[in-house]
Amino acid sequence: MSKNTWRDYPLWLKALPWELTGDLRTPEDVAEYECSRYMSMHPSSAITLIHDDTHGEGYTLHWEERNCTVHGSGAGLLYGFYDAVFHARVNSREEVDAKPRYALRMINCWDNMDGSIERGYAGRSMWFEGSRFVYDPDRIRQLGRLLASVHINVLCINNVNVQDPAGHLLDTFLPDLAGFADILRPFGVRVMISIDFAMPILEGMTTADPLDPAVEAWWGVKADKIYEAIPDFAGFLVKADSEHRPGPNAYGRNHAEGANMLAKALAPHGGVVVWRAFVYNCKQDWRDQSVDRPKAAYDLYHPMDGQFAENVILQIKNGPFDFQVREPVSPLFYGMPHTRLALEFQLTQEYTGHQVDIYAMPPLFEEVMQAIPENAISAIAGVSNLGRDSNWTGHPFAALNLFAYGRTAFHGTQDSKAVTDLWLGNTYPDLSSRDRKILHSVLLHSRIAYERYTAPLGLCWMVNPHGHYGCSPYGYEFDVWGTYNRADRFGVGIDRTSSGTGYTLQYPEHLQYVYENRDLCPDNLVLFFHRLPYDAVLHDGNTLIQRIYEDHFQGLADVEEMKRLLDTVQFPEEDAEEVHQRMEMQLHNAREWCDIINTFFYRFSGIPDQKGRVIYP
Amino acid sequence: MSKNTWRDYPLWLKALPWELTGDLRTPEDVAEYECSRYMSMHPSSAITLIHDDTHGEGYTLHWEERNCTVHGSGAGLLYGFYDAVFHARVNSREEVDAKPRYALRMINCWDNMDGSIERGYAGRSMWFEGSRFVYDPDRIRQLGRLLASVHINVLCINNVNVQDPAGHLLDTFLPDLAGFADILRPFGVRVMISIDFAMPILEGMTTADPLDPAVEAWWGVKADKIYEAIPDFAGFLVKADSEHRPGPNAYGRNHAEGANMLAKALAPHGGVVVWRAFVYNCKQDWRDQSVDRPKAAYDLYHPMDGQFAENVILQIKNGPFDFQVREPVSPLFYGMPHTRLALEFQLTQEYTGHQVDIYAMPPLFEEVMQAIPENAISAIAGVSNLGRDSNWTGHPFAALNLFAYGRTAFHGTQDSKAVTDLWLGNTYPDLSSRDRKILHSVLLHSRIAYERYTAPLGLCWMVNPHGHYGCSPYGYEFDVWGTYNRADRFGVGIDRTSSGTGYTLQYPEHLQYVYENRDLCPDNLVLFFHRLPYDAVLHDGNTLIQRIYEDHFQGLADVEEMKRLLDTVQFPEEDAEEVHQRMEMQLHNAREWCDIINTFFYRFSGIPDQKGRVIYP
Repeated sequence: MSKNTWRDYPLWLKALPWELTGDLRTPEDVAEYECSRYMSMHPSSAITLIHDDTHGEGYTLHWEERNCTVHGSGAGLLYGFYDAVFHARVNSREEVDAKPRYALRMINCWDNMDGSIERGYAGRSMWFEGSRFVYDPDRIRQLGRLLASVHINVLCINNVNVQDPAGHLLDTFLPDLAGFADILRPFGVRVMISIDFAMPILEGMTTADPLDPAVEAWWGVKADKIYEAIPDFAGFLVKADSEHRPGPNAYGRNHAEGANMLAKALAPHGGVVVWRAFVYNCKQDWRDQSVDRPKAAYDLYHPMDGQFAENVILQIKNGPFDFQVREPVSPLFYGMPHTRLALEFQLTQEYTGHQVDIYAMPPLFEEVMQAIPENAISAIAGVSNLGRDSNWTGHPFAALNLFAYGRTAFHGTQDSKAVTDLWLGNTYPDLSSRDRKILHSVLLHSRIAYERYTAPLGLCWMVNPHGHYGCSPYGYEFDVWGTYNRADRFGVGIDRTSSGTGYTLQYPEHLQYVYENRDLCPDNLVLFFHRLPYDAVLHDGNTLIQRIYEDHFQGLADVEEMKRLLDTVQFPEEDAEEVHQRMEMQLHNAREWCDIINTFFYRFSGIPDQKGRVIYP
Repeated sequence: MSKNTWRDYPLWLKALPWELTGDLRTPEDVAEYECSRYMSMHPSSAITLIHDDTHGEGYTLHWEERNCTVHGSGAGLLYGFYDAVFHARVNSREEVDAKPRYALRMINCWDNMDGSIERGYAGRSMWFEGSRFVYDPDRIRQLGRLLASVHINVLCINNVNVQDPAGHLLDTFLPDLAGFADILRPFGVRVMISIDFAMPILEGMTTADPLDPAVEAWWGVKADKIYEAIPDFAGFLVKADSEHRPGPNAYGRNHAEGANMLAKALAPHGGVVVWRAFVYNCKQDWRDQSVDRPKAAYDLYHPMDGQFAENVILQIKNGPFDFQVREPVSPLFYGMPHTRLALEFQLTQEYTGHQVDIYAMPPLFEEVMQAIPENAISAIAGVSNLGRDSNWTGHPFAALNLFAYGRTAFHGTQDSKAVTDLWLGNTYPDLSSRDRKILHSVLLHSRIAYERYTAPLGLCWMVNPHGHYGCSPYGYEFDVWGTYNRADRFGVGIDRTSSGTGYTLQYPEHLQYVYENRDLCPDNLVLFFHRLPYDAVLHDGNTLIQRIYEDHFQGLADVEEMKRLLDTVQFPEEDAEEVHQRMEMQLHNAREWCDIINTFFYRFSGIPDQKGRVIYP
């Protein structure tokens, strides 16, 4: 990282003075304070705040010339103020009548108390180090402000894989947690924590059986203590019976029984249990083709639909695997009509370039939100891409993903172009409009490029094991994780149709029909749903093998072009080095992916590129 | 590990009382003390020690009935005593006139000062923890005794990849190092340390250029201080310009210049510089087929033959790669007639089963010693397989490798069967002769079995990256380490003959002839030297693909049989659980290897097993 500190990176808040006083108590305090400072920085345009209780967390914006009137109350007033600032910056005078699309708009942080962040690519934790809370209150306040500006209202502060001593966040560390919550409260952000289902045992109980009255009582007492310390505590996030985490199955109880017991303890206080649906057999035998990991969550939860308590929310990753570059949306979104659901996105770029490669997510959010049935979900979560790096997100462009996620969470589906422009205008106000157009095109093309040079056509998992950056096409092929591509000399992919593993049958009929039918299944998912020979002809007229070559050569060329374009942009000094260094790394990564994938499939198929380009033997 | 402590594991020293007093000053003191205790434990047989200066480090044993007379002096007398004990235990009354085959018989420990051991599978370091020396002096004394009993005389105590703060072993930690050396001295064991070539810079110099007089002077002063504290200090072990270690190349100097500068500092004190020849391009481009890693060391060092100082020893791994299961011996053993050479074995089972799988090395030692030209080497090193585990070596059988290594180092090539029996007789004196025969056969078959179920016919590197346990046939295929098998639908292997990379040309003509010629090249190395189609016919009449299937099914069957046999052995209580648990793990590992390798080559070749056994698709 450069010599700059986090104080040099106000991200998209450049229209406001960066410093923030510590003595603000409520979101309205913050709104008034921010507004007065805004006015002194921008004397020619006014924002007027009108307290108005009728909007809940929502707000309205009304424009007269350059002046904006915000109506709202509480966090809504603050949200409206920030939204007015964003619009003013890009000279948009849109009338706004905003209501929150989802009441719970969460950021899930996978921070461990040792200071590391699981799958974090922006430095260490901003609040944990050395097995305790260690933070700069100024930075936490700024974090609260950043979250409020995009209307996030819940921050889950610790890893879903609860590592020692995070099991003690509810006892030893409760005063620290309460102090941390106090800092975020004026920004309308409530804290949540990930809990370990076996916590009663960690603290001396002999069982964590959810149907044991003593266990239920234990959690009840626990909840009372928490809410005494943190009256607006958001609730628990739980990863249970998944990837070696403890859970109710150990006691012969199902997940509804496990979640409902916790929910009962939180209900009197208005808290929720967010129960992750990321459960599958992580000790699979690669020889056993009858098991198909994408089926696991639906098989487990669909029969439990309707059994969960009111304040339980089942949190489902956007796809059935694990944040791969190209997956269909999870069939659970269609299969749990009587259960509160949350959609989980992963902002941190675990499989999408580690915040080295550019991967702008607005098109992902837009696609997924459009694919999920209307009203299927009532909450939303994003796995944090933030860390202690000066610029907050490792790659400066990764901040777009947090910004767009927040706006999606509050306003619902966002037009990718519009939200990207809003971020660009507020993040890079001093760039020429030519340079902003270049950034706009690079960002909106970045996901397409990444998809082209990595695993082809929905194949998934061709990453280096453990780290998940870079290409290893057979790296997970014989492992226990259920992550196989089954490439051989005849073809590649897994038949997930009704004549194969039957995964497609988990979808409603109209989607079954699309995914089952080779003539209808979109090319970009064809290897997710079908096993194909290399000479199969795709919709675009290419054979499968030729399409793999085309995509990979094109993906590399895309990155070369992105680099050429970015080299012409006059970035602000604090970003330039990061952007260019990471672009070099991305180009190297894209070249490796391109050549490795091409070689891998050439070695199996023996079919050369029709255009005679170099494929290494 | 079980509830036993290291005091319950005297390894092969069961014929002696285990406790050891701390007030013995010289090897002769130890010999007298051990002898008197032996006599009280075995009143019916006498060992008589005769001080006799004419043998150097050697000794003679003369038997009359059950009584043995040992002639020798210093460490030689102690060595003779232990040898007499070993022989007495197995009722061998061989007359012995032993002279050390190599004057330097080293164990290289890859212990880091944080307490971890690189590639260690027997627990943490016995002498480092928390960035300092931490040890039980009793255990270090026992370690000295174990080493003396197999005539090891040099212990290099820290990792060749020198990790902070081990760069300070020669200043801050010198008093601790001297204290540690004092404990080992009565056992004839001298300490050596691995140094960082850039140490002068770590301590404030502006350069480590070996031709800079100030650098030379710096090392001279350093050496004087060391020998003031440790008069019998053995010298330095150096990994330079290798796998990101610093070295003379940074200053445009060659390795002779680098090594000789260090050697000059040590020469007045009788110390040596052991310079590792493990140097290759570890940032190779997998696309570039003109680079061939096994060639690297010869290409680098052969032109420097004759340029090294008298007290420099070039330490060469047994094969040109890196302790793979099957490699030819390094061509450097034939190509450095005017340089002192050491042979390096790896006792710790990095690529040979992590001390989970049984892999007895006596046949490896025997083969390699017989293959290396007479008098090519003048010293020998073994990378330690020891650690803080109660039983010293993780798997109880792994102790055989240390025992056989020590005897090979002192006596020269050992008959595998005889040395295994000597170890068995002294380690398991109470086993029935039937059980010992079973162990004998399991141990001597273990390397064959391991070779069968892992990478086929000299192919190397089909291990899981980083950890190096378990099978990932393409795990290193597109990486930077020069470790490729280039399997495709047509065949597998790299042509290393004169028509390929030319690696064979580094050997003397008679070996070139053998390795170049498919009719002469041994099957077990055929994929090391040749690229073959799957239907190539091997010497045994099988096609290549069928031979791969045969070996892998047989390797798995071998392990099943080993398990069946071991289940019938009445192990001493302290070993039984370890042996059986690890055998279960080995069986699982063998099954994975067998099926993955078969599937991998089936997927490429499309050729089924001639005998119709199950190969998973």
